[in-house]
Amino acid sequence: VLSYDGGAYHGWQRQENAVTIQQVLEEKIGLMTGEKIRLIASGRTDAGVHALNQVCNFQTRSRIEPDSLRRGLNSLISGDIHVKTAETVPLDFHSRYDARSKVYEYRILNRAEPELFLRHYTWHVRHPLDREVMDGCLAELYGTHDFSAFRSSGSSNRNPVRRMIRADIQGPENGLLVFRFEADGFLRHMVRNVVGTVVETGMEKRGLQEFREILHSRDRCRAGIKAPPQGLFLVEVKY
Amino acid sequence: VLSYDGGAYHGWQRQENAVTIQQVLEEKIGLMTGEKIRLIASGRTDAGVHALNQVCNFQTRSRIEPDSLRRGLNSLISGDIHVKTAETVPLDFHSRYDARSKVYEYRILNRAEPELFLRHYTWHVRHPLDREVMDGCLAELYGTHDFSAFRSSGSSNRNPVRRMIRADIQGPENGLLVFRFEADGFLRHMVRNVVGTVVETGMEKRGLQEFREILHSRDRCRAGIKAPPQGLFLVEVKY
Repeated sequence: VLSYDGGAYHGWQRQENAVTIQQVLEEKIGLMTGEKIRLIASGRTDAGVHALNQVCNFQTRSRIEPDSLRRGLNSLISGDIHVKTAETVPLDFHSRYDARSKVYEYRILNRAEPELFLRHYTWHVRHPLDREVMDGCLAELYGTHDFSAFRSSGSSNRNPVRRMIRADIQGPENGLLVFRFEADGFLRHMVRNVVGTVVETGMEKRGLQEFREILHSRDRCRAGIKAPPQGLFLVEVKY
Repeated sequence: VLSYDGGAYHGWQRQENAVTIQQVLEEKIGLMTGEKIRLIASGRTDAGVHALNQVCNFQTRSRIEPDSLRRGLNSLISGDIHVKTAETVPLDFHSRYDARSKVYEYRILNRAEPELFLRHYTWHVRHPLDREVMDGCLAELYGTHDFSAFRSSGSSNRNPVRRMIRADIQGPENGLLVFRFEADGFLRHMVRNVVGTVVETGMEKRGLQEFREILHSRDRCRAGIKAPPQGLFLVEVKY
C-alpha cells in the first residue's frame, strides 16, 4: 500500500522516455531482491494524479521480510513516493482483478482567491458553483450505468458499464469542495470527465436535465471539459 | 502583501549565485515599471521558509495602478509566489521599521507515520511529545526577554531584547501541532531554535526548569537543535 505525489511523474504505468511510479518502484524492489520485478497495481493513475492508498503486488522468491522491504524502499526512493505497509499475500492475489471497489476524491478550491499551498492539490475554480445542481448531477450517477459518455477518447473497448456506489460532495470548508466517488471500477479519465461536466453544470452552462441526457447518451462528444489531474486522489481500494 | 512557498528559493534576501524571492520580485517589478527597483520587506525569511502574508514596499515613479501591478506580477512570476494585494502607501511607509508585531507559525507532524503531502510544510517528529511540558516552556516565553540563547550563531549584535505577545500550541489534529508566536520582533533563527529546544524538552531530554535556565542564560550554546525550515510560516505582519 503506497501513497504518492503524482506531480513529478508521468503517471503509474511504465513507459519509454518518461519517469513513472511503476518504473521507479520496480527498479528499487529489483535492487533489493536481485530479481526482475513486475508490479501489478489496482489500476493506473494518470500523469499528475495522486494516491493516498494505491495497492500493488508482485511475486518474488526473495526471503526479505515485508516490513524490511518497506523500510528499505522508503530509504531508496525519493520523498514523493511512500510505502505505507507491506505484507505477504496468497500467490493468487491480484491487485487489479481482486479489487471490489475503489474510492477517488477530487478536490476543488471554489473561491475568488487562489491558495498557493493548495495549487498542486486542487483545481482552482473562481466561478461560483450552484451546489444544489451539482448534488443533483451526482445523484444521477448512483447505480449501474454505461459510462461511455465520460470515458477518454483513447480508451479501449472494454465493458463500459460500472456500478457507482457513492458520489457526493463534502464541504465547502474555506472554499474547498471534496467530491468523493466509489464504484466497482472506473473507466479511463472517468472521474475527471464527470467532475469537469458537473462543474460546468454548476456554473449554469447547462441544466440538470442536460447532464442526465449526457450520461444516458453514452456519447463522449457531449460531455464537458476534463478536470485537471492535480485535484484527483486515489483514496482507497477495497478487496 | 504576498505569499510564497519557500521550498524552491534561497530565502528572501538577494544574494549572489542563488535564486531568492526578493531578486525575482525586483526583476519582474522592474520589467513592469522600467525602473531599477529595491524592495523592502518586513524581514528576511530563510531558505525554505514559507510566508502566508509577507509585506514589502518599494518606491516608484510609475503610474501603474496597484491592482494592475498585482495582476501583471502574478502572470509574470511562477506559481510559488503569489501577490495577494497591492496598494499605494505614504512615501515614508517602511515595511520593516513600521511593523508593530509579527506572527509566525511552526507546524509539526507528531505521529509515527509520515504524511507525504505535508512533507514540505511540516517537521515530522516521530517521538511522542509531552504537551504539558511544552505548554510550560511556551508560557515562559511571554513578556520581555533577552532572547540571545535562541539567536543564530552568525547574527549581528543588534539589541536581542524582544517582547513575546503570544506563544502557544494548537492541535493536535491528526497529529498536526501548530506552534504560534507573536512578538514585536524576532531574532535570526529565533523561532526555529525555540521550537527545536521546546521539542527536545517535550521528548523529556530536559526538564522545564532547564528550559527556563536556557532562556535566562542568554547563552546560545545551551539551546537545543534548530528545527528545520519547512515547518515555518510567516503568517502576519501587524502595523
